[in-house]
Amino acid sequence: MKRIGMLTSGGDCQALNAAMRGVVKCLANSGEEIEIYGFLDGYRGLIYGNFRMLGEHDFSGILTKGGTILGSSRTPFKTIKDPDENGLDKVDAMKQNYYKLQLDCMVILGGNGTHKTANLLREEGLNIITLPKTIDNDLWGTDMTFGFQSAVDIATDCIDCIHTTASSHGRVFIVEVMGHKVGWLTLNAGMAGGADIILIPEISYDIDKVVDAIKQRHEKGKRFTILAVAEGAISKEDAKLSKKEYKKKLENYKYPSVSYEVADRISQMTGQEVRVTVPGHTQRGGSPCPYDRVFASRLGSEAGRLILEGEYGFMVGYKNREIVKVPLEDVAGKLKMLSPEASIVQEAKSLGISFGD
Amino acid sequence: MKRIGMLTSGGDCQALNAAMRGVVKCLANSGEEIEIYGFLDGYRGLIYGNFRMLGEHDFSGILTKGGTILGSSRTPFKTIKDPDENGLDKVDAMKQNYYKLQLDCMVILGGNGTHKTANLLREEGLNIITLPKTIDNDLWGTDMTFGFQSAVDIATDCIDCIHTTASSHGRVFIVEVMGHKVGWLTLNAGMAGGADIILIPEISYDIDKVVDAIKQRHEKGKRFTILAVAEGAISKEDAKLSKKEYKKKLENYKYPSVSYEVADRISQMTGQEVRVTVPGHTQRGGSPCPYDRVFASRLGSEAGRLILEGEYGFMVGYKNREIVKVPLEDVAGKLKMLSPEASIVQEAKSLGISFGD
Amino acid sequence: MKRIGMLTSGGDCQALNAAMRGVVKCLANSGEEIEIYGFLDGYRGLIYGNFRMLGEHDFSGILTKGGTILGSSRTPFKTIKDPDENGLDKVDAMKQNYYKLQLDCMVILGGNGTHKTANLLREEGLNIITLPKTIDNDLWGTDMTFGFQSAVDIATDCIDCIHTTASSHGRVFIVEVMGHKVGWLTLNAGMAGGADIILIPEISYDIDKVVDAIKQRHEKGKRFTILAVAEGAISKEDAKLSKKEYKKKLENYKYPSVSYEVADRISQMTGQEVRVTVPGHTQRGGSPCPYDRVFASRLGSEAGRLILEGEYGFMVGYKNREIVKVPLEDVAGKLKMLSPEASIVQEAKSLGISFGD
Amino acid sequence: MKRIGMLTSGGDCQALNAAMRGVVKCLANSGEEIEIYGFLDGYRGLIYGNFRMLGEHDFSGILTKGGTILGSSRTPFKTIKDPDENGLDKVDAMKQNYYKLQLDCMVILGGNGTHKTANLLREEGLNIITLPKTIDNDLWGTDMTFGFQSAVDIATDCIDCIHTTASSHGRVFIVEVMGHKVGWLTLNAGMAGGADIILIPEISYDIDKVVDAIKQRHEKGKRFTILAVAEGAISKEDAKLSKKEYKKKLENYKYPSVSYEVADRISQMTGQEVRVTVPGHTQRGGSPCPYDRVFASRLGSEAGRLILEGEYGFMVGYKNREIVKVPLEDVAGKLKMLSPEASIVQEAKSLGISFGD
Repeated sequence: MKRIGMLTSGGDCQALNAAMRGVVKCLANSGEEIEIYGFLDGYRGLIYGNFRMLGEHDFSGILTKGGTILGSSRTPFKTIKDPDENGLDKVDAMKQNYYKLQLDCMVILGGNGTHKTANLLREEGLNIITLPKTIDNDLWGTDMTFGFQSAVDIATDCIDCIHTTASSHGRVFIVEVMGHKVGWLTLNAGMAGGADIILIPEISYDIDKVVDAIKQRHEKGKRFTILAVAEGAISKEDAKLSKKEYKKKLENYKYPSVSYEVADRISQMTGQEVRVTVPGHTQRGGSPCPYDRVFASRLGSEAGRLILEGEYGFMVGYKNREIVKVPLEDVAGKLKMLSPEASIVQEAKSLGISFGD
Repeated sequence: MKRIGMLTSGGDCQALNAAMRGVVKCLANSGEEIEIYGFLDGYRGLIYGNFRMLGEHDFSGILTKGGTILGSSRTPFKTIKDPDENGLDKVDAMKQNYYKLQLDCMVILGGNGTHKTANLLREEGLNIITLPKTIDNDLWGTDMTFGFQSAVDIATDCIDCIHTTASSHGRVFIVEVMGHKVGWLTLNAGMAGGADIILIPEISYDIDKVVDAIKQRHEKGKRFTILAVAEGAISKEDAKLSKKEYKKKLENYKYPSVSYEVADRISQMTGQEVRVTVPGHTQRGGSPCPYDRVFASRLGSEAGRLILEGEYGFMVGYKNREIVKVPLEDVAGKLKMLSPEASIVQEAKSLGISFGD
Repeated sequence: MKRIGMLTSGGDCQALNAAMRGVVKCLANSGEEIEIYGFLDGYRGLIYGNFRMLGEHDFSGILTKGGTILGSSRTPFKTIKDPDENGLDKVDAMKQNYYKLQLDCMVILGGNGTHKTANLLREEGLNIITLPKTIDNDLWGTDMTFGFQSAVDIATDCIDCIHTTASSHGRVFIVEVMGHKVGWLTLNAGMAGGADIILIPEISYDIDKVVDAIKQRHEKGKRFTILAVAEGAISKEDAKLSKKEYKKKLENYKYPSVSYEVADRISQMTGQEVRVTVPGHTQRGGSPCPYDRVFASRLGSEAGRLILEGEYGFMVGYKNREIVKVPLEDVAGKLKMLSPEASIVQEAKSLGISFGD
Repeated sequence: MKRIGMLTSGGDCQALNAAMRGVVKCLANSGEEIEIYGFLDGYRGLIYGNFRMLGEHDFSGILTKGGTILGSSRTPFKTIKDPDENGLDKVDAMKQNYYKLQLDCMVILGGNGTHKTANLLREEGLNIITLPKTIDNDLWGTDMTFGFQSAVDIATDCIDCIHTTASSHGRVFIVEVMGHKVGWLTLNAGMAGGADIILIPEISYDIDKVVDAIKQRHEKGKRFTILAVAEGAISKEDAKLSKKEYKKKLENYKYPSVSYEVADRISQMTGQEVRVTVPGHTQRGGSPCPYDRVFASRLGSEAGRLILEGEYGFMVGYKNREIVKVPLEDVAGKLKMLSPEASIVQEAKSLGISFGD
């Protein structure tokens, strides 16, 4: 008999349900008797002992369903060791709930922040298995995270739609793609949507070069230019600021987001109208794409196998087309950045895409 | 032999190409010899004599293509009688180009503004046939405009995506749908997407009632609330302002758009986080939906028939499931508003949707 | 207090759940106390008293869900008055279950066959409200049925996909679209997908004219031809057969379906390879399109209103863009055929589409 | 100055245009002067000297376009060395056309058969670069082929649609997925669509075990079962036949395809109705999915780079998330089968999917 706790933490994304279904189906088909404790709304559920007992049927029919049947919330790692507003020690509370329910392990689905807390719980002696969830694809130790490809699909759809209207009207359009710290999503959606200019956090841009690229298109007789701009795109000047200075700049920012500043500067420098579209949270909603469904199911299935074998302390990841286990301590606190030298960036440049660098 | 001019004016939308293809296919299949003059970028092309000769093959394969192969631009009716920056009389220039090319008629695709100018040209003696293009579905004299259903599909997709993330996180989400003056698009996308609250220009809202609706959902145990808010949604207080006063308010507006004000007020009154998503121009991009392809093709085909019969001065519209011709003078300058008493509004209310009124 | 029975009968289609949700939401929001008895698997549930009590929450979140939460089955009208294999009088059994549960009315969702039985139950004294469900759009008394537009979307997607491969390979392709008796779906999907030839039951085809149309395209330099063929397409010779003779022909048919015969004959007469694609049941599956969601919700809402007002014996239909009530006796047993003279057919012909007639 | 020939051969698939655009954009952006000779309809164009000169603009806007702008055809490797019906030596003709046009290299996009001929041309001394195109993902030497993920998406959509109707009606449904020799596509679409049973060529099935799996679902209270069956699925008995015997069986086959035999046998053994859906050629049509657009663009870009560096005789493939060059002689004539021991198969089994083995 295995008692498994489960929670989803951080911003939700596609295929969370598919992944959990994978874990539970694997366990249920193993012959092992199991009890599933679904903690609600992320770590908060584990802290306050808020859970539902779930049966195999709760995971039936959710393969294609977006969101998470457990709910999610953000519980910043920064303050995880601080007591809550009633003085409760959150880490201690999680441990107590874990032991009180005599859990064999916790399955935790989340992104970077989630993994830091998961690793902390591991250090505290809990049996932890994690699954790499994020549309950002920025988790260290895995080639891919689920949610990413679904988000690429949605952001690309958005650029496709903008393409037709851009070509009718001959304007400059910006599509702002999610990604504060990394540019995987913007780069892939930009390439898939045929964006002409892609601005990402890893490659700071020079607005003069951006404007040059627009002008060169114009000279070639192209009526329009489309930019895919990551939420965290940064200019070369801003990149020189200290973290603190840049934060201060953003606090007094007159723009709703970075894309609007880019739009404003292009508009001033070229005299052209620039339109900004922000698909925002749609990028992590809706039914997971087939790629993510298969991928998350596979990860979930392997997580189930690790549990059956009593192997804890790992994130289930993906390396060279195989599902692998990665020690949690190696994952926690590390970002998988996109290198400006990565071959995909070079290939994008060969295709004529400007990064403004 | 028929010499046909053609132009698309105003914001582009889906199925413009399908409609033009319909006109040309109908003419080409009639046995009548034809010459097609495609004026580029809306009325501007007709004013400055900027056109391309087009053959039947130019209209082949464009049924499913978004945008317009002729390009489009906005040429405000307000200033159409004013000379351009070089002193050119624009109306006169259009007439001269029409006569110089010995056109039998102009086929003009556009929305409200476009129809005012089209009617002016008719009054000036030109043979005009128009086709009702707009995602807003606000053209007088026709039950439906092409672009509308495609835009409903895109805005609904957006709400669908938000639905999953809203249910995971239990927040209030606003999706801002296009429509400054009329609410057809927001109402239909809102109903299709299962929005809980729909705010449209025709029914001014009381923020207290909006907040009440959110609270009632909360009391029923619903974790989240989704609002579909038209760009032109207006509060009861603002609706009391004179047009001039309201315009002034918007000029000094601290929000990027009305939705953000709604979000801010809900947030202040409920203490809940409110997220705004703005699909923006995506709503008029991309491939037309099958409904619009059929509809626009039918309209185009009937426009072709009218041309063959030498019947000019009409918009080709849709009434009670039949394609009809509507005198241009009846269409120009009128908006088809959504009545707060319309049965669809009553049905929406029966479904539990709040309009904040 | 109202006690409402509900069942879905016949082949399922999109938006059945949306329609039922509409009924229940309307009733629940009216303040009237209600009890919903959901009979399972069509009339079978009513015959054998197989039902589930349903609450408002059962209808929450199903707006976008394909299929029917009640299950469905076919119960042929032909044999409804015959006793079942255990000698049970089916009509009597339905009445008994209705009265035993003290139902105020039955809400019945279905197509043509379903309406005949529904009308029979009305004649037997039961209070009946029906909703027009069918992808065929062939119900008399309503301009539109839900499921139709969703099916058009799927069949059109299919033709779109075939279009690219047809243009690469320069072959003749047939897409077989659902519709044994009527051609609405094939005609609309065919027009939306840009099919070159459309064969429907209402317009019997001459294979020589079909082949001529293919040859003419070839002579014009077109590499490929796409046919949208309804399941019930019929040649002029076969149309001359008596019903009995034609039935006999189909019994000894060497082809899986009519499309394959068309393919075979074209292939023999032109020497060209002809490929057949049969999307089949996919055409009634999947999430309803936004149009159907709105439409079915509106119909459901009005059905709820009729129940509240105690008005029974009607199908809720759609006429001239308004939701209307149509006496059941007028609907039962009648098909809404597509007239070969209908303006949409003429428009299609103007576009160059051949019907092989 | 580089003179580049280009052709697409074999069954078309998604992203062929994206890949060619990648090659041309890379070359055009390199500063090198180029001439592109597009041979029409596969090797046939090269044999008969049928080509078009193409400029960069011909490759603009085709990233999202399905099919191939060059057309394609099948030219069986088996008979490539045989003279054509007029006695023309085909290999010799290709060489002559290559030299006559003073080509620097041929870029050839295709699948297995195509690669055999491409390698033959390499052996004959031509400079060849190939790109791995096939929805089957069965090319040796690359982890992935373009077209595959797009086909997975379409086949999965199909299973999704069937899912709703299956759950309404409680039947057994078979979706026949493309793949005569390998099961990658069926396995991935089956897993993504939540199929209960997956039959693929690599794992021959025992019909008793298939029926057992259906019965077990029934006993668990599941109303329906969905099978994803590859075109080349084979029973354990048939797998024992010699290739010749099996071919003979298929020649006298009374079923349109293997799925219908599976359906028939299940139907006979369980008494349940079984429906077969065959999405067929739709699986390789339509716009490429974002994954394939990025992937094909990257491959094309690297092919361009190889050409610039004068490195010939390679297929551009994908290994461990990097674009690599693979010697053509290693690729030609080898299939990348799915091993029954592959971890993805084991994971699928853990999820409860039966392979009938």
